[in-house]
Amino acid sequence: MTDYIRDGAEIYRLSFATIRAESDLGGLPPEVARVAVRMIHACGMTDLVRDLAWSPGAVVRAERALRAGAPVLCDAMMVASGVTRRRLPADNEVLCTLGDPRVPELAERLGTTRSAAALELWRDRLEGSVVAIGNAPTALFRLLELVAEGAGRPAVVLGIPVGFVGAAESKQALADSDLEYLVVHGRRGGSAMTAAAINAIASEVE
Amino acid sequence: MTDYIRDGAEIYRLSFATIRAESDLGGLPPEVARVAVRMIHACGMTDLVRDLAWSPGAVVRAERALRAGAPVLCDAMMVASGVTRRRLPADNEVLCTLGDPRVPELAERLGTTRSAAALELWRDRLEGSVVAIGNAPTALFRLLELVAEGAGRPAVVLGIPVGFVGAAESKQALADSDLEYLVVHGRRGGSAMTAAAINAIASEVE
Repeated sequence: MTDYIRDGAEIYRLSFATIRAESDLGGLPPEVARVAVRMIHACGMTDLVRDLAWSPGAVVRAERALRAGAPVLCDAMMVASGVTRRRLPADNEVLCTLGDPRVPELAERLGTTRSAAALELWRDRLEGSVVAIGNAPTALFRLLELVAEGAGRPAVVLGIPVGFVGAAESKQALADSDLEYLVVHGRRGGSAMTAAAINAIASEVE
Repeated sequence: MTDYIRDGAEIYRLSFATIRAESDLGGLPPEVARVAVRMIHACGMTDLVRDLAWSPGAVVRAERALRAGAPVLCDAMMVASGVTRRRLPADNEVLCTLGDPRVPELAERLGTTRSAAALELWRDRLEGSVVAIGNAPTALFRLLELVAEGAGRPAVVLGIPVGFVGAAESKQALADSDLEYLVVHGRRGGSAMTAAAINAIASEVE
Protein backbone atom coordinates (compact mmCIF):
# COMPACT_ATOMS: atom_id res chain seq x y z
CA MET A 1 0.00 0.00 0.00
CA THR A 2 1.25 3.44 -0.93
CA ASP A 3 1.62 5.64 2.11
CA TYR A 4 -0.48 8.77 1.88
CA ILE A 5 -1.07 12.16 3.48
CA ARG A 6 -3.92 12.07 6.00
CA ASP A 7 -3.84 15.70 7.15
CA GLY A 8 -6.69 17.52 5.42
CA ALA A 9 -5.16 20.98 5.84
CA GLU A 10 -1.85 19.77 4.41
CA ILE A 11 -3.67 18.16 1.46
CA TYR A 12 -5.38 21.47 0.69
CA ARG A 13 -2.13 23.40 1.03
CA LEU A 14 -0.22 21.07 -1.28
CA SER A 15 -3.11 20.94 -3.76
CA PHE A 16 -3.41 24.70 -4.07
CA ALA A 17 0.38 25.08 -4.27
CA THR A 18 0.49 22.57 -7.13
CA ILE A 19 -2.34 24.33 -8.92
CA ARG A 20 -0.69 27.74 -8.58
CA ALA A 21 2.63 26.31 -9.80
CA GLU A 22 1.19 24.55 -12.84
CA SER A 23 -1.63 26.84 -13.98
CA ASP A 24 -1.25 29.91 -16.15
CA LEU A 25 -2.98 32.37 -13.84
CA GLY A 26 -0.90 35.37 -14.85
CA GLY A 27 -3.54 37.03 -16.99
CA LEU A 28 -6.27 36.82 -14.37
CA PRO A 29 -7.29 39.53 -11.91
CA PRO A 30 -6.55 38.29 -8.36
CA GLU A 31 -10.20 37.71 -7.46
CA VAL A 32 -10.75 35.64 -10.61
CA ALA A 33 -7.52 33.71 -10.02
CA ARG A 34 -8.79 32.73 -6.57
CA VAL A 35 -11.99 31.36 -8.12
CA ALA A 36 -10.05 29.62 -10.91
CA VAL A 37 -7.79 27.84 -8.40
CA ARG A 38 -10.75 26.35 -6.59
CA MET A 39 -12.45 25.35 -9.86
CA ILE A 40 -9.24 23.62 -11.00
CA HIS A 41 -9.08 21.89 -7.64
CA ALA A 42 -12.55 20.48 -8.25
CA CYS A 43 -11.80 19.03 -11.69
CA GLY A 44 -8.09 18.19 -11.61
CA MET A 45 -7.34 20.09 -14.82
CA THR A 46 -4.91 23.02 -14.80
CA ASP A 47 -5.73 23.88 -18.43
CA LEU A 48 -9.24 24.93 -17.39
CA VAL A 49 -7.93 28.51 -17.33
CA ARG A 50 -7.83 28.72 -21.12
CA ASP A 51 -11.64 28.25 -21.32
CA LEU A 52 -12.46 30.60 -18.46
CA ALA A 53 -14.08 33.94 -19.33
CA TRP A 54 -15.75 36.59 -17.20
CA SER A 55 -17.11 40.10 -17.22
CA PRO A 56 -14.85 42.55 -15.36
CA GLY A 57 -17.14 43.06 -12.38
CA ALA A 58 -18.48 39.53 -12.05
CA VAL A 59 -16.61 38.14 -9.06
CA VAL A 60 -16.66 41.34 -7.01
CA ARG A 61 -20.39 41.76 -7.62
CA ALA A 62 -21.04 38.14 -6.71
CA GLU A 63 -19.09 38.55 -3.46
CA ARG A 64 -21.04 41.69 -2.66
CA ALA A 65 -24.38 40.05 -3.49
CA LEU A 66 -23.65 37.09 -1.22
CA ARG A 67 -22.59 39.36 1.63
CA ALA A 68 -25.87 41.25 1.16
CA GLY A 69 -27.80 37.99 1.55
CA ALA A 70 -28.56 37.09 -2.09
CA PRO A 71 -29.85 33.57 -2.69
CA VAL A 72 -27.84 31.09 -4.78
CA LEU A 73 -30.11 29.71 -7.49
CA CYS A 74 -28.88 26.32 -8.79
CA ASP A 75 -30.10 24.32 -11.78
CA ALA A 76 -29.18 20.93 -10.30
CA MET A 77 -29.27 19.27 -6.90
CA MET A 78 -25.60 18.32 -7.29
CA VAL A 79 -24.65 22.00 -7.52
CA ALA A 80 -26.70 22.86 -4.44
CA SER A 81 -25.23 19.83 -2.67
CA GLY A 82 -21.68 21.00 -3.41
CA VAL A 83 -22.08 24.47 -1.91
CA THR A 84 -20.41 24.48 1.50
CA ARG A 85 -23.02 26.15 3.68
CA ARG A 86 -20.60 27.30 6.38
CA ARG A 87 -18.62 29.35 3.81
CA LEU A 88 -21.66 31.46 2.88
CA PRO A 89 -21.35 34.94 4.45
CA ALA A 90 -25.02 35.58 5.25
CA ASP A 91 -26.53 32.15 5.78
CA ASN A 92 -27.69 32.56 2.18
CA GLU A 93 -30.46 30.38 0.83
CA VAL A 94 -29.28 27.79 -1.71
CA LEU A 95 -32.24 27.00 -3.91
CA CYS A 96 -32.78 24.26 -6.51
CA THR A 97 -36.34 23.94 -7.80
CA LEU A 98 -35.75 20.95 -10.09
CA GLY A 99 -37.36 18.55 -7.63
CA ASP A 100 -40.46 20.70 -7.14
CA PRO A 101 -43.56 18.60 -7.84
CA ARG A 102 -44.91 21.26 -10.24
CA VAL A 103 -41.91 20.98 -12.58
CA PRO A 104 -42.85 17.91 -14.69
CA GLU A 105 -46.19 19.47 -15.63
CA LEU A 106 -44.57 22.85 -16.28
CA ALA A 107 -42.05 21.18 -18.59
CA GLU A 108 -44.80 19.46 -20.53
CA ARG A 109 -46.88 22.61 -20.84
CA LEU A 110 -43.91 24.75 -21.90
CA GLY A 111 -42.51 22.08 -24.23
CA THR A 112 -39.06 22.15 -22.67
CA THR A 113 -36.80 20.22 -20.34
CA ARG A 114 -37.48 19.97 -16.64
CA SER A 115 -34.21 21.79 -15.99
CA ALA A 116 -35.47 24.79 -17.99
CA ALA A 117 -39.03 24.60 -16.65
CA ALA A 118 -37.73 24.66 -13.07
CA LEU A 119 -36.60 28.25 -13.64
CA GLU A 120 -40.25 29.38 -13.80
CA LEU A 121 -40.14 28.98 -10.02
CA TRP A 122 -37.21 31.42 -9.79
CA ARG A 123 -39.14 34.39 -11.17
CA ASP A 124 -39.62 36.23 -7.88
CA ARG A 125 -36.06 35.45 -6.72
CA LEU A 126 -34.04 36.40 -9.81
CA GLU A 127 -33.46 40.08 -9.10
CA GLY A 128 -30.06 40.48 -7.47
CA SER A 129 -29.49 36.73 -7.11
CA VAL A 130 -26.36 34.69 -7.75
CA VAL A 131 -27.27 32.13 -10.42
CA ALA A 132 -25.21 28.93 -10.64
CA ILE A 133 -25.93 26.83 -13.74
CA GLY A 134 -23.72 23.75 -13.55
CA ASN A 135 -25.55 21.13 -15.50
CA ALA A 136 -28.18 21.92 -18.13
CA PRO A 137 -27.60 24.14 -21.18
CA THR A 138 -31.39 24.51 -21.54
CA ALA A 139 -31.52 26.07 -18.07
CA LEU A 140 -28.94 28.68 -19.10
CA PHE A 141 -30.78 29.41 -22.35
CA ARG A 142 -34.05 29.74 -20.43
CA LEU A 143 -32.45 32.08 -17.91
CA LEU A 144 -31.39 34.41 -20.71
CA GLU A 145 -34.96 34.37 -22.06
CA LEU A 146 -36.40 35.15 -18.62
CA VAL A 147 -34.04 38.09 -18.19
CA ALA A 148 -34.91 39.34 -21.70
CA GLU A 149 -38.60 39.09 -20.76
CA GLY A 150 -37.92 41.34 -17.77
CA ALA A 151 -38.28 38.72 -15.05
CA GLY A 152 -35.45 40.27 -13.01
CA ARG A 153 -31.68 40.65 -13.35
CA PRO A 154 -29.33 38.41 -11.37
CA ALA A 155 -26.31 40.14 -9.81
CA VAL A 156 -24.14 37.59 -11.62
CA VAL A 157 -24.57 34.36 -13.56
CA LEU A 158 -22.10 31.48 -13.31
CA GLY A 159 -22.74 29.66 -16.58
CA ILE A 160 -20.93 26.34 -16.40
CA PRO A 161 -23.22 23.70 -17.94
CA VAL A 162 -21.53 20.64 -19.40
CA GLY A 163 -22.02 18.55 -22.48
CA PHE A 164 -22.38 18.08 -26.19
CA VAL A 165 -25.66 19.74 -27.12
CA GLY A 166 -26.06 23.43 -26.38
CA ALA A 167 -23.43 23.74 -23.65
CA ALA A 168 -20.89 25.73 -25.67
CA GLU A 169 -23.67 27.72 -27.39
CA SER A 170 -25.48 28.65 -24.17
CA LYS A 171 -22.25 29.83 -22.56
CA GLN A 172 -21.41 31.92 -25.63
CA ALA A 173 -24.90 33.44 -25.48
CA LEU A 174 -24.36 34.38 -21.83
CA ALA A 175 -20.97 35.92 -22.61
CA ASP A 176 -22.62 37.92 -25.42
CA SER A 177 -25.35 39.22 -23.09
CA ASP A 178 -25.17 42.34 -20.92
CA LEU A 179 -25.23 40.32 -17.70
CA GLU A 180 -22.32 39.97 -15.32
CA TYR A 181 -20.99 36.45 -15.95
CA LEU A 182 -18.36 33.83 -15.46
CA VAL A 183 -18.25 30.91 -17.90
CA VAL A 184 -16.12 27.92 -18.88
CA HIS A 185 -16.33 28.01 -22.66
CA GLY A 186 -16.75 24.78 -24.61
CA ARG A 187 -18.08 21.42 -23.52
CA ARG A 188 -16.45 21.22 -20.11
CA GLY A 189 -18.30 22.29 -17.01
CA GLY A 190 -20.39 20.60 -14.39
CA SER A 191 -21.71 20.73 -10.90
CA ALA A 192 -18.39 20.25 -9.09
CA MET A 193 -16.58 23.19 -10.67
CA THR A 194 -19.72 25.33 -10.40
CA ALA A 195 -20.10 24.63 -6.69
CA ALA A 196 -16.36 25.25 -6.30
CA ALA A 197 -16.76 28.68 -7.91
CA ILE A 198 -19.54 29.56 -5.47
CA ASN A 199 -17.43 28.29 -2.56
CA ALA A 200 -14.50 30.44 -3.68
CA ILE A 201 -16.66 33.53 -4.06
CA ALA A 202 -18.36 32.91 -0.71
CA SER A 203 -15.18 32.98 1.37
CA GLU A 204 -11.51 33.79 0.92
CA VAL A 205 -10.50 30.94 3.20
CA GLU A 206 -8.51 28.33 1.28
CA MET B 1 -30.53 34.65 -28.87
CA THR B 2 -29.35 31.35 -30.31
CA ASP B 3 -32.26 28.99 -30.91
CA TYR B 4 -31.86 25.73 -29.02
CA ILE B 5 -33.25 22.23 -28.70
CA ARG B 6 -35.81 21.94 -25.91
CA ASP B 7 -36.71 18.25 -26.25
CA GLY B 8 -34.91 16.38 -23.46
CA ALA B 9 -35.07 13.00 -25.25
CA GLU B 10 -33.66 14.52 -28.43
CA ILE B 11 -30.86 16.20 -26.45
CA TYR B 12 -29.91 12.83 -24.92
CA ARG B 13 -30.06 11.10 -28.31
CA LEU B 14 -27.87 13.72 -29.99
CA SER B 15 -25.46 13.81 -27.06
CA PHE B 16 -24.90 10.07 -26.98
CA ALA B 17 -24.61 9.95 -30.80
CA THR B 18 -21.91 12.65 -30.67
CA ILE B 19 -20.05 10.83 -27.92
CA ARG B 20 -20.14 7.52 -29.80
CA ALA B 21 -18.96 9.24 -33.00
CA GLU B 22 -16.07 11.10 -31.36
CA SER B 23 -14.83 8.70 -28.68
CA ASP B 24 -12.45 5.82 -29.22
CA LEU B 25 -14.63 3.09 -27.70
CA GLY B 26 -13.37 0.30 -29.98
CA GLY B 27 -11.18 -1.38 -27.40
CA LEU B 28 -13.86 -1.51 -24.71
CA PRO B 29 -16.15 -4.44 -23.91
CA PRO B 30 -19.77 -3.39 -24.65
CA GLU B 31 -20.78 -3.11 -20.99
CA VAL B 32 -17.77 -0.88 -20.24
CA ALA B 33 -18.43 1.23 -23.35
CA ARG B 34 -21.95 1.89 -22.10
CA VAL B 35 -20.56 3.13 -18.78
CA ALA B 36 -17.86 5.17 -20.53
CA VAL B 37 -20.44 6.93 -22.73
CA ARG B 38 -22.40 8.10 -19.72
CA MET B 39 -19.24 9.19 -17.88
CA ILE B 40 -18.16 11.21 -20.94
CA HIS B 41 -21.63 12.73 -21.06
CA ALA B 42 -21.17 13.93 -17.48
CA CYS B 43 -17.83 15.65 -18.09
CA GLY B 44 -17.90 16.73 -21.74
CA MET B 45 -14.54 15.11 -22.52
CA THR B 46 -14.33 12.35 -25.13
CA ASP B 47 -10.68 11.67 -24.29
CA LEU B 48 -11.70 10.33 -20.89
CA VAL B 49 -11.49 6.84 -22.43
CA ARG B 50 -7.70 6.91 -22.44
CA ASP B 51 -7.61 7.12 -18.63
CA LEU B 52 -10.31 4.53 -18.00
CA ALA B 53 -9.25 1.15 -16.59
CA TRP B 54 -11.23 -1.74 -15.14
CA SER B 55 -10.99 -5.33 -14.02
CA PRO B 56 -12.64 -7.72 -16.48
CA GLY B 57 -15.63 -8.60 -14.32
CA ALA B 58 -16.23 -5.20 -12.75
CA VAL B 59 -19.25 -3.86 -14.58
CA VAL B 60 -21.09 -7.20 -14.79
CA ARG B 61 -20.52 -7.81 -11.09
CA ALA B 62 -21.68 -4.31 -10.23
CA GLU B 63 -24.87 -4.80 -12.27
CA ARG B 64 -25.49 -8.12 -10.54
CA ALA B 65 -24.84 -6.66 -7.09
CA LEU B 66 -27.28 -3.80 -7.67
CA ARG B 67 -29.96 -6.19 -8.94
CA ALA B 68 -29.42 -8.25 -5.78
CA GLY B 69 -30.04 -5.15 -3.66
CA ALA B 70 -26.51 -4.08 -2.76
CA PRO B 71 -26.17 -0.61 -1.24
CA VAL B 72 -24.21 2.12 -3.02
CA LEU B 73 -21.64 3.53 -0.60
CA CYS B 74 -20.56 7.06 -1.58
CA ASP B 75 -17.73 9.17 -0.16
CA ALA B 76 -19.43 12.51 -0.90
CA MET B 77 -22.94 13.93 -0.78
CA MET B 78 -22.53 15.15 -4.36
CA VAL B 79 -22.03 11.57 -5.55
CA ALA B 80 -25.09 10.37 -3.65
CA SER B 81 -27.02 13.36 -4.93
CA GLY B 82 -26.15 12.48 -8.54
CA VAL B 83 -27.41 8.90 -8.40
CA THR B 84 -30.78 8.78 -10.15
CA ARG B 85 -32.90 6.80 -7.72
CA ARG B 86 -35.48 5.63 -10.27
CA ARG B 87 -32.72 3.91 -12.31
CA LEU B 88 -31.72 1.66 -9.40
CA PRO B 89 -33.03 -1.89 -9.97
CA ALA B 90 -33.85 -2.83 -6.36
CA ASP B 91 -34.64 0.45 -4.65
CA ASN B 92 -31.05 0.20 -3.42
CA GLU B 93 -29.89 2.29 -0.50
CA VAL B 94 -27.51 5.12 -1.44
CA LEU B 95 -25.42 5.85 1.60
CA CYS B 96 -23.05 8.70 2.39
CA THR B 97 -21.85 8.88 5.97
CA LEU B 98 -19.75 12.05 5.63
CA GLY B 99 -22.40 14.16 7.34
CA ASP B 100 -22.81 11.79 10.29
CA PRO B 101 -22.31 13.73 13.53
CA ARG B 102 -19.77 11.14 14.77
CA VAL B 103 -17.40 11.77 11.85
CA PRO B 104 -15.51 14.90 13.03
CA GLU B 105 -14.52 13.18 16.29
CA LEU B 106 -13.62 9.96 14.46
CA ALA B 107 -11.39 11.96 12.12
CA GLU B 108 -9.61 13.61 15.02
CA ARG B 109 -9.15 10.33 16.90
CA LEU B 110 -7.88 8.49 13.80
CA GLY B 111 -5.71 11.41 12.65
CA THR B 112 -7.18 11.46 9.17
CA THR B 113 -9.59 13.38 6.97
CA ARG B 114 -13.31 13.33 7.59
CA SER B 115 -13.77 11.70 4.19
CA ALA B 116 -11.61 8.76 5.30
CA ALA B 117 -13.03 8.63 8.83
CA ALA B 118 -16.57 8.42 7.44
CA LEU B 119 -15.74 4.94 6.10
CA GLU B 120 -15.58 3.61 9.67
CA LEU B 121 -19.37 3.75 9.50
CA TRP B 122 -19.39 1.50 6.40
CA ARG B 123 -17.85 -1.51 8.17
CA ASP B 124 -21.01 -3.58 8.46
CA ARG B 125 -22.16 -2.63 4.94
CA LEU B 126 -18.96 -3.24 2.94
CA GLU B 127 -19.41 -6.93 2.09
CA GLY B 128 -20.95 -7.20 -1.38
CA SER B 129 -21.54 -3.46 -1.69
CA VAL B 130 -20.98 -1.15 -4.66
CA VAL B 131 -18.50 1.51 -3.53
CA ALA B 132 -18.46 4.84 -5.36
CA ILE B 133 -15.52 7.09 -4.45
CA GLY B 134 -15.88 10.28 -6.46
CA ASN B 135 -14.14 12.89 -4.40
CA ALA B 136 -11.52 12.10 -1.78
CA PRO B 137 -8.32 10.14 -2.43
CA THR B 138 -8.00 9.54 1.33
CA ALA B 139 -11.37 7.75 1.27
CA LEU B 140 -10.11 5.39 -1.43
CA PHE B 141 -6.84 4.76 0.43
CA ARG B 142 -8.79 4.09 3.63
CA LEU B 143 -11.13 1.70 1.81
CA LEU B 144 -8.16 -0.38 0.67
CA GLU B 145 -6.89 -0.47 4.26
CA LEU B 146 -10.29 -1.57 5.57
CA VAL B 147 -10.48 -4.38 3.02
CA ALA B 148 -6.92 -5.45 3.89
CA GLU B 149 -7.95 -5.51 7.56
CA GLY B 150 -10.77 -7.92 6.68
CA ALA B 151 -13.67 -5.51 7.14
CA GLY B 152 -15.54 -6.99 4.16
CA ARG B 153 -15.09 -7.09 0.38
CA PRO B 154 -17.17 -4.82 -1.86
CA ALA B 155 -18.57 -6.44 -5.02
CA VAL B 156 -16.88 -3.66 -6.96
CA VAL B 157 -15.17 -0.33 -6.29
CA LEU B 158 -15.56 2.68 -8.57
CA GLY B 159 -12.43 4.66 -7.75
CA ILE B 160 -12.81 8.07 -9.34
CA PRO B 161 -11.50 10.65 -6.84
CA VAL B 162 -10.22 13.90 -8.30
CA GLY B 163 -7.29 16.15 -7.60
CA PHE B 164 -3.65 16.86 -7.13
CA VAL B 165 -2.66 15.04 -3.95
CA GLY B 166 -3.16 11.28 -3.81
CA ALA B 167 -5.80 10.98 -6.52
CA ALA B 168 -3.60 9.29 -9.13
CA GLU B 169 -1.81 7.25 -6.45
CA SER B 170 -4.99 5.98 -4.77
CA LYS B 171 -6.45 4.91 -8.09
CA GLN B 172 -3.25 3.10 -9.00
CA ALA B 173 -3.35 1.34 -5.62
CA LEU B 174 -6.92 0.19 -6.31
CA ALA B 175 -5.97 -1.06 -9.78
CA ASP B 176 -3.07 -2.98 -8.20
CA SER B 177 -5.35 -4.61 -5.62
CA ASP B 178 -7.30 -7.84 -6.05
CA LEU B 179 -10.66 -6.03 -5.92
CA GLU B 180 -13.00 -5.65 -8.88
CA TYR B 181 -12.58 -2.04 -9.94
CA LEU B 182 -13.19 0.73 -12.42
CA VAL B 183 -10.97 3.81 -12.27
CA VAL B 184 -10.14 6.99 -14.18
CA HIS B 185 -6.37 7.14 -13.89
CA GLY B 186 -4.66 10.45 -13.23
CA ARG B 187 -5.99 13.63 -11.70
CA ARG B 188 -9.37 13.72 -13.39
CA GLY B 189 -12.43 12.31 -11.68
CA GLY B 190 -15.20 13.69 -9.57
CA SER B 191 -18.70 13.24 -8.33
CA ALA B 192 -20.47 13.82 -11.65
CA MET B 193 -18.66 11.13 -13.59
CA THR B 194 -18.83 8.77 -10.61
CA ALA B 195 -22.60 9.18 -10.27
CA ALA B 196 -22.87 8.79 -14.06
CA ALA B 197 -21.03 5.47 -13.84
CA ILE B 198 -23.46 4.24 -11.18
CA ASN B 199 -26.41 5.45 -13.26
CA ALA B 200 -25.10 3.58 -16.32
CA ILE B 201 -24.54 0.39 -14.35
CA ALA B 202 -27.95 0.66 -12.69
CA SER B 203 -29.97 0.67 -15.91
CA GLU B 204 -29.38 0.12 -19.62
CA VAL B 205 -31.84 2.88 -20.51
CA GLU B 206 -30.07 5.75 -22.28
